[in-house]
Amino acid sequence: MLEYKTFELGNLTLQHGATLRGARLAYQTYGELAPDRGNAILYPTWYSGRHWDNEWLIGPGMTLDPGRYFIIVPNMLGNGLSSSPSNTPPPYDRARFPRVTVYDNVAAQHRLVTEKFGIERLALVTGWSMGAGQTYQWAVSHPEMVPRIAPFCGSSRTSTHNRVFLEGVKAALTADATFAGGWYAHPPVTGLRAAARVYAGWGFSQAFYWRHLYEELGYSSLEDFLVGFWEGFFLDDRDANNLLTMLWTWQNADVGQTPGFGGDTVAALGSIKARALVMPAEKDLYFPPEDEEWAVRHIPDAELRVIPGVWGHFAGHGSNPEDTRFIDAALRELMSL
Amino acid sequence: MLEYKTFELGNLTLQHGATLRGARLAYQTYGELAPDRGNAILYPTWYSGRHWDNEWLIGPGMTLDPGRYFIIVPNMLGNGLSSSPSNTPPPYDRARFPRVTVYDNVAAQHRLVTEKFGIERLALVTGWSMGAGQTYQWAVSHPEMVPRIAPFCGSSRTSTHNRVFLEGVKAALTADATFAGGWYAHPPVTGLRAAARVYAGWGFSQAFYWRHLYEELGYSSLEDFLVGFWEGFFLDDRDANNLLTMLWTWQNADVGQTPGFGGDTVAALGSIKARALVMPAEKDLYFPPEDEEWAVRHIPDAELRVIPGVWGHFAGHGSNPEDTRFIDAALRELMSL
Repeated sequence: MLEYKTFELGNLTLQHGATLRGARLAYQTYGELAPDRGNAILYPTWYSGRHWDNEWLIGPGMTLDPGRYFIIVPNMLGNGLSSSPSNTPPPYDRARFPRVTVYDNVAAQHRLVTEKFGIERLALVTGWSMGAGQTYQWAVSHPEMVPRIAPFCGSSRTSTHNRVFLEGVKAALTADATFAGGWYAHPPVTGLRAAARVYAGWGFSQAFYWRHLYEELGYSSLEDFLVGFWEGFFLDDRDANNLLTMLWTWQNADVGQTPGFGGDTVAALGSIKARALVMPAEKDLYFPPEDEEWAVRHIPDAELRVIPGVWGHFAGHGSNPEDTRFIDAALRELMSL
Repeated sequence: MLEYKTFELGNLTLQHGATLRGARLAYQTYGELAPDRGNAILYPTWYSGRHWDNEWLIGPGMTLDPGRYFIIVPNMLGNGLSSSPSNTPPPYDRARFPRVTVYDNVAAQHRLVTEKFGIERLALVTGWSMGAGQTYQWAVSHPEMVPRIAPFCGSSRTSTHNRVFLEGVKAALTADATFAGGWYAHPPVTGLRAAARVYAGWGFSQAFYWRHLYEELGYSSLEDFLVGFWEGFFLDDRDANNLLTMLWTWQNADVGQTPGFGGDTVAALGSIKARALVMPAEKDLYFPPEDEEWAVRHIPDAELRVIPGVWGHFAGHGSNPEDTRFIDAALRELMSL
């Protein structure tokens, strides 16, 4: 659903020093909070995703069943619904929007969960891509609140290669002079379309394209997929400064940057108390399974379960029923523990 | 060596219809042609490479020993030395430079080899990346002339995913308004730098970046590698129209488009008479080994030999001594057959 609720954060002091005054967290909930407040699941959004983009994994008969659980989907800061460059009044508007970390996102979400709903313990935190990053951060920031995590197609620390991939996206977007350092009078459409084309090669695997699986998504040709899916994706109410805010969040994600860990990612992973079911996708080009093997080695109670197949990163996007069934079944197993 | 020779092609009629008048093929040779003309090796260049960029695989004691073989390195059309947008006089100059196929390149090289040197049979054709594509094309265009081919980190047909990767590079380059549809007054430096950053994620593997192997290449940080290596690469006398000409050649490469095969890549591969030693790199992100497994299945006398390790596509660039030794040893084995 497109509707959402807003939690007023007031003054949100960010990890890198700015205070976002009148900050807001947009969110949506599915199901009813049980009287003992023990059935809440947190399911953060991904890069440019909105709460409604998470709904494919929620529904009657699925593990995330609103008949059983109270599912909270907080929108990431910068996504255009929560406080973002596009909706923040001066002076922190547009190109002046401050740097936001994954830690900051989780701090804001923690206030929603505790202050608004009085929840002391979440049954599960799960998420795709940057949502997986927020999932890891929850387990590090609030280990006592998180008994289970299921990050899929994401990481606890953005790898060097992943940062490079994002440099390409950023460089393409900002090569458009219309961008004007973020003070654009009109959307930098050429840059957005270029960023989309850069992203296209990364989002799905080589094998996905080899088999022309975009045809299964309803696209008649490769160019139809590049324009219809990818350019459409980046033009669908995506603001350039918003995209760059979230891109910075992503490039700089690292649970080791949680206060108290001094940059030690391994120590941060070691502090996780949750049972972790970690699900990279077999052919994910920017969150490859090898990176998650590394993370799992450092989490006390973790299992690596690779999503098989050729959909690459978008295995976790809800587009391929087989991958959705895999993720849903894994979540069911985790919730039964 | 920076010096080169020029073969005058005269009127070069291209596969897509234009005639390039006064076309030139720039080339360099290493070693002496034997009296029986039986010791010639052809070693075409790669995307934006020049003949001197191939010299890492040539030398005394190596398989491509100028003391034994006569090694011809023809520069690809569009690379700035052979006929290119940047050096062709009007009316086919700059943005009007015609579309050139891999077939066209090989046709021009065939004239050099036969008309200039009177060679009837090449001992070997080998090449990296787009050079591998030209290698395959030689074996299809002139099967009787080519007893051995060793394409490494390339393909006989550009895969759909590979085309998408290149779309991202192209979109980043042309997002710079300075490009002006190819009629730029000054080099589109922002676009070239953006294209370089897009390329950076593809050229080396995730594991290469994970291990910070760019430090072995002499770069002090990731940003130093992105600017010093990648942006420097794209600014090193690389002309934007030249890059786009070669990019079109690459995106449209397919031995099945050889006249007589009617687009049937499998039939074209089946017509190869050469002994083929096909060497993809284990973690090449745009020429993955799976694609070359497919090609090898359709070539009558072919072996797949994967270059192990984490250097990705740049395993074939001469930067990593271990990969260079692997390729050199494989070539030695092939030449002994």
